[in-house]
Amino acid sequence: MYNKKKIINDPLYGFIGIPNEIVFDLISHPWIGRLRNIRQLGLTHFVYPGAVHTRFHHALGTLHLANLAIETLLSKGVAISMQEADGLRLALLLHDIGHSPYSHSLERILVKIPHETITGMAMKKLNSIFPGKLEIAQEIFHNTYPKKFLHQLVSGQLDLDRLDYLNRDSFYTGVSEGVVSFDRIIKMLNVQDGELVLEEKALYSLENFLISRRLMYWQVYLHKTVIASEQLMLKILKRAKHLIRKGNFLFSSPFLQEFLKRDIEEGEFLERPELFERFMDLDDSDIWSAIKAWTKDSDFILSTLSQSLIQRKLYHIELEDSPASHEKIEILKEKVRKAFIISEEDLDYFVFTGKTHHLAYNQSREDIFMLRKDHNPISFLEVSDFFSSTGIAVPVEKHYICYFRF
Amino acid sequence: MYNKKKIINDPLYGFIGIPNEIVFDLISHPWIGRLRNIRQLGLTHFVYPGAVHTRFHHALGTLHLANLAIETLLSKGVAISMQEADGLRLALLLHDIGHSPYSHSLERILVKIPHETITGMAMKKLNSIFPGKLEIAQEIFHNTYPKKFLHQLVSGQLDLDRLDYLNRDSFYTGVSEGVVSFDRIIKMLNVQDGELVLEEKALYSLENFLISRRLMYWQVYLHKTVIASEQLMLKILKRAKHLIRKGNFLFSSPFLQEFLKRDIEEGEFLERPELFERFMDLDDSDIWSAIKAWTKDSDFILSTLSQSLIQRKLYHIELEDSPASHEKIEILKEKVRKAFIISEEDLDYFVFTGKTHHLAYNQSREDIFMLRKDHNPISFLEVSDFFSSTGIAVPVEKHYICYFRF
Amino acid sequence: MYNKKKIINDPLYGFIGIPNEIVFDLISHPWIGRLRNIRQLGLTHFVYPGAVHTRFHHALGTLHLANLAIETLLSKGVAISMQEADGLRLALLLHDIGHSPYSHSLERILVKIPHETITGMAMKKLNSIFPGKLEIAQEIFHNTYPKKFLHQLVSGQLDLDRLDYLNRDSFYTGVSEGVVSFDRIIKMLNVQDGELVLEEKALYSLENFLISRRLMYWQVYLHKTVIASEQLMLKILKRAKHLIRKGNFLFSSPFLQEFLKRDIEEGEFLERPELFERFMDLDDSDIWSAIKAWTKDSDFILSTLSQSLIQRKLYHIELEDSPASHEKIEILKEKVRKAFIISEEDLDYFVFTGKTHHLAYNQSREDIFMLRKDHNPISFLEVSDFFSSTGIAVPVEKHYICYFRF
Amino acid sequence: MYNKKKIINDPLYGFIGIPNEIVFDLISHPWIGRLRNIRQLGLTHFVYPGAVHTRFHHALGTLHLANLAIETLLSKGVAISMQEADGLRLALLLHDIGHSPYSHSLERILVKIPHETITGMAMKKLNSIFPGKLEIAQEIFHNTYPKKFLHQLVSGQLDLDRLDYLNRDSFYTGVSEGVVSFDRIIKMLNVQDGELVLEEKALYSLENFLISRRLMYWQVYLHKTVIASEQLMLKILKRAKHLIRKGNFLFSSPFLQEFLKRDIEEGEFLERPELFERFMDLDDSDIWSAIKAWTKDSDFILSTLSQSLIQRKLYHIELEDSPASHEKIEILKEKVRKAFIISEEDLDYFVFTGKTHHLAYNQSREDIFMLRKDHNPISFLEVSDFFSSTGIAVPVEKHYICYFRF
Repeated sequence: MYNKKKIINDPLYGFIGIPNEIVFDLISHPWIGRLRNIRQLGLTHFVYPGAVHTRFHHALGTLHLANLAIETLLSKGVAISMQEADGLRLALLLHDIGHSPYSHSLERILVKIPHETITGMAMKKLNSIFPGKLEIAQEIFHNTYPKKFLHQLVSGQLDLDRLDYLNRDSFYTGVSEGVVSFDRIIKMLNVQDGELVLEEKALYSLENFLISRRLMYWQVYLHKTVIASEQLMLKILKRAKHLIRKGNFLFSSPFLQEFLKRDIEEGEFLERPELFERFMDLDDSDIWSAIKAWTKDSDFILSTLSQSLIQRKLYHIELEDSPASHEKIEILKEKVRKAFIISEEDLDYFVFTGKTHHLAYNQSREDIFMLRKDHNPISFLEVSDFFSSTGIAVPVEKHYICYFRF
Repeated sequence: MYNKKKIINDPLYGFIGIPNEIVFDLISHPWIGRLRNIRQLGLTHFVYPGAVHTRFHHALGTLHLANLAIETLLSKGVAISMQEADGLRLALLLHDIGHSPYSHSLERILVKIPHETITGMAMKKLNSIFPGKLEIAQEIFHNTYPKKFLHQLVSGQLDLDRLDYLNRDSFYTGVSEGVVSFDRIIKMLNVQDGELVLEEKALYSLENFLISRRLMYWQVYLHKTVIASEQLMLKILKRAKHLIRKGNFLFSSPFLQEFLKRDIEEGEFLERPELFERFMDLDDSDIWSAIKAWTKDSDFILSTLSQSLIQRKLYHIELEDSPASHEKIEILKEKVRKAFIISEEDLDYFVFTGKTHHLAYNQSREDIFMLRKDHNPISFLEVSDFFSSTGIAVPVEKHYICYFRF
Repeated sequence: MYNKKKIINDPLYGFIGIPNEIVFDLISHPWIGRLRNIRQLGLTHFVYPGAVHTRFHHALGTLHLANLAIETLLSKGVAISMQEADGLRLALLLHDIGHSPYSHSLERILVKIPHETITGMAMKKLNSIFPGKLEIAQEIFHNTYPKKFLHQLVSGQLDLDRLDYLNRDSFYTGVSEGVVSFDRIIKMLNVQDGELVLEEKALYSLENFLISRRLMYWQVYLHKTVIASEQLMLKILKRAKHLIRKGNFLFSSPFLQEFLKRDIEEGEFLERPELFERFMDLDDSDIWSAIKAWTKDSDFILSTLSQSLIQRKLYHIELEDSPASHEKIEILKEKVRKAFIISEEDLDYFVFTGKTHHLAYNQSREDIFMLRKDHNPISFLEVSDFFSSTGIAVPVEKHYICYFRF
Repeated sequence: MYNKKKIINDPLYGFIGIPNEIVFDLISHPWIGRLRNIRQLGLTHFVYPGAVHTRFHHALGTLHLANLAIETLLSKGVAISMQEADGLRLALLLHDIGHSPYSHSLERILVKIPHETITGMAMKKLNSIFPGKLEIAQEIFHNTYPKKFLHQLVSGQLDLDRLDYLNRDSFYTGVSEGVVSFDRIIKMLNVQDGELVLEEKALYSLENFLISRRLMYWQVYLHKTVIASEQLMLKILKRAKHLIRKGNFLFSSPFLQEFLKRDIEEGEFLERPELFERFMDLDDSDIWSAIKAWTKDSDFILSTLSQSLIQRKLYHIELEDSPASHEKIEILKEKVRKAFIISEEDLDYFVFTGKTHHLAYNQSREDIFMLRKDHNPISFLEVSDFFSSTGIAVPVEKHYICYFRF
């Protein structure tokens, strides 16, 4: 009989408890285990060396927060059955199971499908493997379950996913300002008319949460060196695909090979279950070991870019409020033309522009409601004397230009 | 020979180093030692039991931050002599030496003088005791020293006092959201044209600092139960003074007695050095032990209120955006009239109103300037895409009504 | 209706939950509230400025650990009724209620009674105030309750009291090595044949706990400057009693006066309930404000010693493995004789010796048993390959000599 | 001009400062960068999911401790030149550069050479690349530098390597008891007669350090599941080598291929610089992606074991004080014989025994000396009243048996 260990050490939360067998069995499943080799923040460790934590750890973290939230809501008289509690736990545990290697960095690159869709597929398959045990989890995940607040805990403006990743990413990057009082916020959760609400006295914690999130975006997730690293990896994969499709032989693991050969759209992915299986064998090591091998490839562009990444000689990047001028781009391209014999088309591997954006609070998507003493929920933006008239609900867009570091 | 210990353990910073003899001698002076028995946050421990840290500890904390700031600025080529460094250290170490027992709670109550004025007097006297050793410290404190940035580190929108107290108060209350990345902010300090500036990339840390400060105000410093406690202590002292001046005998330490007998204005305080000496003998224990004794006093109002405080049966308090209506006040007073035989004048001990306010960012007083890459300082409010148009520079006022808990 | 707040912030544990009304009511009782002004570690803050935390906070901490232990034991199938759970909580919450001001520093000084006896009296009285609600708590405290493990959680080699104070004292002193993995140890608790046992895999945590405790003793609790401070306070109180009993008038609060006038033995204390009431009015502020006043007393010895304490000019102290030689004592006394006109008897206020000791593990008192996989409990000392043959169960004694600092 | 960033965030220490260009340049060298993809604790994350930190981070950590130690020793008047300080920093930064993928797990497996030898080779080569800049670092590393204490800071009973890894591993595993007061220990370092000593008052910190280290060994480094994981990986590599040498084609990265083809002894490794280059291209991703591919290999043993590792279905392992009996081994082997058609020789892939040991304090190798007040160094074991007579200097040996989990 397999020993089902009940407690897992976590640097962030102390101990994470595994409440029962079905949760244990899913944690032990290879598809979750795969996340042990997918770093939560992709290449962010190039800037913050501590940021090597994995999606596996994040999944466990959301499980822990689910335990806390269930305890709080039950203590306030919110009706949650044992089955619903497990549904919530599993929906959170599995919510990132469909991620690519390097998480968001390679989103929609290896397959042209958002990770949530792949998560949905995985949950469906797991529901066959553990017959019927994931019914509620799936409904919660897809927001078809009647108790809407359960979905809101998985995916919303103030979900447990965000609470864990903000805390965890702050912790591992060492950016202490990103720390969020997850325990206080969870203790202030409640349900009103089936919707998740926050007690009014959590107002300042909520403001702090939004500001911390904004800080984490600009200081970590959209840090210019992180963008430069990700763009470099994307260009390398683009080149590798190009070469393979031209008929060149390139080293890669047999799993990765499949996804470089040609673009896989959602339709094909759904029809061919073996593609899903293959995808579920991929982790960071396939990508990284391939790029290392490509440093010795005979294609000049592939080997040059691969060496840049492996040796962390990343693109120069400038992040500005407005796009780079045509002149500036031209000057930089001219420099490349002088250094290399290169087609106009391939110049794009060495000089290119793009943009990124962040929206601290997406009111149109879903507002956060606060519970007043009179039990009337009210939009957060109406309560805060501070945020109401501000730019928090306005997206911020930044433009970047990347160019090769000679 | 007196052993001059060089390192002090601090739960917050690990170790605080004492750089030299003059700093050591001042830490050992009884006027600083007195702060060991003055709690940093007065009666806040009624709400947050951990908040029993002292002004002494805060003084040491600012010394530590002074050490860090000096190191950073020197490494950036800012000219600071050894004497100026000590001046800054001493100005910070001593900046709160003039506080009353219970810190801000009893500001201007025992003497009608702001604590900064008393600090100034103490520094002057210490400069005689340690001849000339506090010249620069005094000039920095009073902002008459030519290098203005030294004063700004002691007192400004982003001074080391604030950095320490926000961090320390967050730590001891357990309100983790108040934590500020003091080390990052200090490492981003610089001096431009003699003024303190912050490097532009500290923008998000600065926003976070301002939001954390705001949170600490509403969640801790102006917490309604804290206000109710302080008001109760003030009413007790008011009654005690009234009775003593009527000729009643009330128990108190001989030190405290002096300050209850009659109001002491700044003029008298300056003229009579023995009053200063007496004041410097006062700490929380004089106030608390007196109020405990007054629980047995024969004056009904004094004993009732004293019992309320000692037993933590505080006033009911309501904190609202607008003042309480005349009707509401009248109803509450009527209740008191029915319960006690009491004069109209004394009703004010049992039902009263007041207001409190907080200004997160006082631009008119002194702006925070950020240093751009082009070396042009620019106002923080012009850099932040987020705070510029908001209410951060607008004072928030709240009205309270307190009434006796029957 | 009184608002019964359910969550208390704690810097150490995050949040402490108050499970129900009776626990809330006892936390609100003035006898517990009194502990807000009794520092956990007496004068230790003279060495570790952070160590100003109170017995009140410690009491709440043990309540929190009780909640954790109950949860763990229930999850392992140990039978604990709701009433027993509350009994354990209350026994822990109240276990230190009988402490004097300055905790252990003044143990048996103001009354000739150990604090546990006074705690017992207080619990009995509280059981009348809250009729019958403390029956089980009392039995657990006095070890007359059949389920012996409940008492062991309150008082034993590995009780929740120790777990909290080691952690809390480490935290506030900043002596990080004293940190104990309280959560791991609690999760490894179990009950076998009615006795508390620890699962075998907690062996290394237990070893670490014992070593941390030993470190805390020598580095904090028995730090030589702490001993010197306490001895100074004891000498001051001895002198004050002497003078009062000679008929001198000395300032003190009316509460303290009672206990200086003459020695109170257990018999008298039990017979005169008003003495108990008086005692329960005492806290640190009575002692400290009195000693401050005594700095101006006309008795040379009292004022000299009081000034020494208030100004932290403590005795010189030497802590050695063997007692100071007669010659050394004589030389030091001679120095005092030359400086002061003083009787031979009173020399003892300025030069004296004593000893202190610590026993890391008291096997004879009560062993710690570990639970093997075969469910046979075995003594900790038999399991540890490391501690078994060592000196951990041997008391260590140190001798000190204190002498006045001229 | 390459931007030489001066501060690196570290979750453990806050900020790590890079003091100058040569240190920066070495941190940027690909051989150090390679450590970003070598996990500090190999497969330990199978037990402690947080333990995914890298050798790169550890290298930076030791650099930080070097900065602290230099500062402390200079402040005590120990003579250290700028060149020696950099020598110490570089020796620490580079001390693990010769590690294999999966660190200690694969020590002497891919090449038959201890990692320290490879580190020595790398330092020699780097000394050519940065001409002469690593002379002192090399001498310190090889203990040929006259100031012996510098080597002792790199490698000894109480070196900075140990201080960092104990702290870092505790932090990331979440095993809080392993935390060591590195800052206190470093502040207590001194040099006497050219040897590193510890001031006597650090005695309790040192005891705590040794106990924490012991705990980390048994609870983390030699955790039975960790041993089982490592043994599984070793068996897989053994099988892969066997198959390749038989002539089978197995997938692996070209870098890894080289080291599977045949055993490489120290002589060959030294003679063929291209082998060193190849080795320096290896990281965890080569091993992991190969083993993943081998889960589909046609060799039954290779694919079975590879699946076990990837799916974390590890060997059963029993860790005991004495070796498993011959009978027990035979029973387990019989079970395998019944399940698989397998040669006697290959049974060893499914059932095998081994042993592991730990020595908490290796007195014979190098004692720790403490500095008394009389400036005479004395062996730690003579000072400690506690450790002197104990088993701390006696090696502990444990025997394990691993068998396949059907």
